[in-house]
Amino acid sequence: MSRRKAPKSVVKRLPVYLRILDNLIRRDIEVVSSRVLSDETGFTAEQIRKDLAYFGAFGTRGTGYNTHYLRDKLLRIIGLHRVTKIIVVGYGHLGKALTRYNAVKNSYVDIVAAFDINPVEEEAIEGLRVLEMQYLPEVIREEEVKVAILTVPAEAAQEVVDLLVENGITSILNFAPTNISVPEGVYVHNTDLTLELQTLIYYSFEDEALHYGE
Amino acid sequence: MSRRKAPKSVVKRLPVYLRILDNLIRRDIEVVSSRVLSDETGFTAEQIRKDLAYFGAFGTRGTGYNTHYLRDKLLRIIGLHRVTKIIVVGYGHLGKALTRYNAVKNSYVDIVAAFDINPVEEEAIEGLRVLEMQYLPEVIREEEVKVAILTVPAEAAQEVVDLLVENGITSILNFAPTNISVPEGVYVHNTDLTLELQTLIYYSFEDEALHYGE
Repeated sequence: MSRRKAPKSVVKRLPVYLRILDNLIRRDIEVVSSRVLSDETGFTAEQIRKDLAYFGAFGTRGTGYNTHYLRDKLLRIIGLHRVTKIIVVGYGHLGKALTRYNAVKNSYVDIVAAFDINPVEEEAIEGLRVLEMQYLPEVIREEEVKVAILTVPAEAAQEVVDLLVENGITSILNFAPTNISVPEGVYVHNTDLTLELQTLIYYSFEDEALHYGE
Repeated sequence: MSRRKAPKSVVKRLPVYLRILDNLIRRDIEVVSSRVLSDETGFTAEQIRKDLAYFGAFGTRGTGYNTHYLRDKLLRIIGLHRVTKIIVVGYGHLGKALTRYNAVKNSYVDIVAAFDINPVEEEAIEGLRVLEMQYLPEVIREEEVKVAILTVPAEAAQEVVDLLVENGITSILNFAPTNISVPEGVYVHNTDLTLELQTLIYYSFEDEALHYGE
């Protein structure tokens, strides 16, 4: 079974399983049934069994899954058994915060460098290089970086994305408030906080009739 | 037509239309056809016409939409014609960054206060109150805040959400890396950066066969 052929919906559930398993292991639980995983995740036991079987992770009928074994397998499937090198492009408020945020700053990620058109190194976290954009191609290629977090303004986004992809980046977490185009084979996740906040505002109003011709 | 009855898929497209219209107006474009909107958004002209008609925004057949009129209408539909009061709960790296990030800090949003179990006011942006959690109910009720950005750790999330909802919050942008439960009528958008980054890492690997029994 090929990595890229796994349905995206299945792939997106893997980190959820991993999180639950981490919690179970922290609570010293050695074996977990599909039913407990179902209660914890909100997915059906059937869906869970199918998802895991897809990657060759089979539990023992009647017993369930060994938590340590399953967690180790998931780490490998997701790719967290090795340290992933990433770069952060755009070192403004959001970029800076992400380099310090424990979702990004953790044991399976190495932030090789941050980049900005106007790097201010004094504010960097210890050990983080903050470099000018001109060094981006060189760093990506030398360190064989595949993953980038994009926190540049909308107007710069496509140009930067083209540069990233040209130099070997294959996965982008895009926070720039705009669509970006990438070639086939490059994976993008868009987090558009402006859109999300505006949608939130829409829903914050009382359920009222919206009038025509206002 | 009632606000809450509009399909979520339609609601989520509204801020995209608004963004495109802002761009068009900046370029001094007075009238726009569904076809141009289609090119700019990636949605079909038919979808766009349907979406806008849903809210009573009809263009003129053969001419298109007046950009200023449509933008004004969209501002009202989304709810951005008035300033929305919001609070940020959890004033760590991410919370702080969001209070400075222009997706959040802009003319239609008033960040009434940020909250933290351990508020450090010196780092706050000018004019932003950073308060202890004990003041949260009072502030929400007095200012009639409906929207909250949640940037607390996973273990605190549900307890804080319960407090928010109890005091009148109806829309939550959740960054805590965990699921949260809310009653019907409360809208939540989950941005789980850990999950997104792990998915990115999955896709950053070469398309290889994943082996059974590794």
